[in-house]
Amino acid sequence: MKTLILATDNQDKVHEIREILKDLPIAVLSKAQAGMSYIEVVEDAQTLEGNAEIKARSIKEKAPEAIVLADDTGLYVDALDGAPGVHTARYAGENCSYQDNRRKLLNALKDLPLEERSARFVTCIVIIDEMGILHLAEGVCEGMISEEERGERGFGFDPVFIPKDYDKTFAEMDGQIKNSISHRARALDALLELLERMCK
Amino acid sequence: MKTLILATDNQDKVHEIREILKDLPIAVLSKAQAGMSYIEVVEDAQTLEGNAEIKARSIKEKAPEAIVLADDTGLYVDALDGAPGVHTARYAGENCSYQDNRRKLLNALKDLPLEERSARFVTCIVIIDEMGILHLAEGVCEGMISEEERGERGFGFDPVFIPKDYDKTFAEMDGQIKNSISHRARALDALLELLERMCK
Repeated sequence: MKTLILATDNQDKVHEIREILKDLPIAVLSKAQAGMSYIEVVEDAQTLEGNAEIKARSIKEKAPEAIVLADDTGLYVDALDGAPGVHTARYAGENCSYQDNRRKLLNALKDLPLEERSARFVTCIVIIDEMGILHLAEGVCEGMISEEERGERGFGFDPVFIPKDYDKTFAEMDGQIKNSISHRARALDALLELLERMCK
Repeated sequence: MKTLILATDNQDKVHEIREILKDLPIAVLSKAQAGMSYIEVVEDAQTLEGNAEIKARSIKEKAPEAIVLADDTGLYVDALDGAPGVHTARYAGENCSYQDNRRKLLNALKDLPLEERSARFVTCIVIIDEMGILHLAEGVCEGMISEEERGERGFGFDPVFIPKDYDKTFAEMDGQIKNSISHRARALDALLELLERMCK
């Protein structure tokens, strides 16, 4: 069985990606499980794509024969001119918690009516295959920012993001439903056929 | 039959890429043949990869359903700390000729013995497929810069580049041989299996 190394130690992402890829005959390892937690990267690109590539290449350099997958995700809020965007993970500052981020966001949108709270999650996924070819796909999930936190599931901004055509936040939804419509699922979906071929 | 649009009107590149892909059941169109010569791009990225991506996306934006291929190539000369590198096409200035470029290079390396004239050609190829997934591969050809121009074939720096293990410049070689060892051929080779599947 082949091995796919995820260029992350974010347990929430690892869990979600594993869940989405669970039917593929490939062993999915986190950065730590691959013994690569020592690799530190500066995610200083101006785009999600650039940051995903920086993370993927940092692992590929040390494991040239592995298949590597990196993800970078941003939340783009229209009323904030697209912020937090590429800075989503550290919106409330370096080493801030998910909750710090959510509080800052709800505060920035305080008193805005629902129709002005439109936003989208965007995920860029980069896979570098065994031959060194890089593959990149993007997944988008449109929605809006809720007026308060709701739900306990998911992670990050999930408790304040209501996907389009739904009335629950991602954090209130069953994981299976979230994983069928989310930005991350859509990006991975686009790459699934490629990944299937790589498993052979 | 599907269509592959090349994000270039450089006839030399179009000819060479067509030759390398001639066995694939896909119609290879230049930017002009696809009616897209009006699209102008500023290739201001800091990397070959970035510039290839800029070119590919500029076409994909106007032809979302097409398969698009862009190439960016650099010549990296060790004695010049990697110059002309990402600026290879415009080494001797905007709108300079191939010959202006070669003259400037031979001049910069004047009196350097052969063993200090090592260099490599690098090509980055970006393909964006019908689903919008971007695929990127790199091809490298090691060699050295000759002491004077030799040969009439090829284009660009071909008359001054001697690939490793050969004693002729690219411009002295039969096109078929060049196209079996060149940077561009190697990058395309890596992507050939993907392209074959896209043709189905």
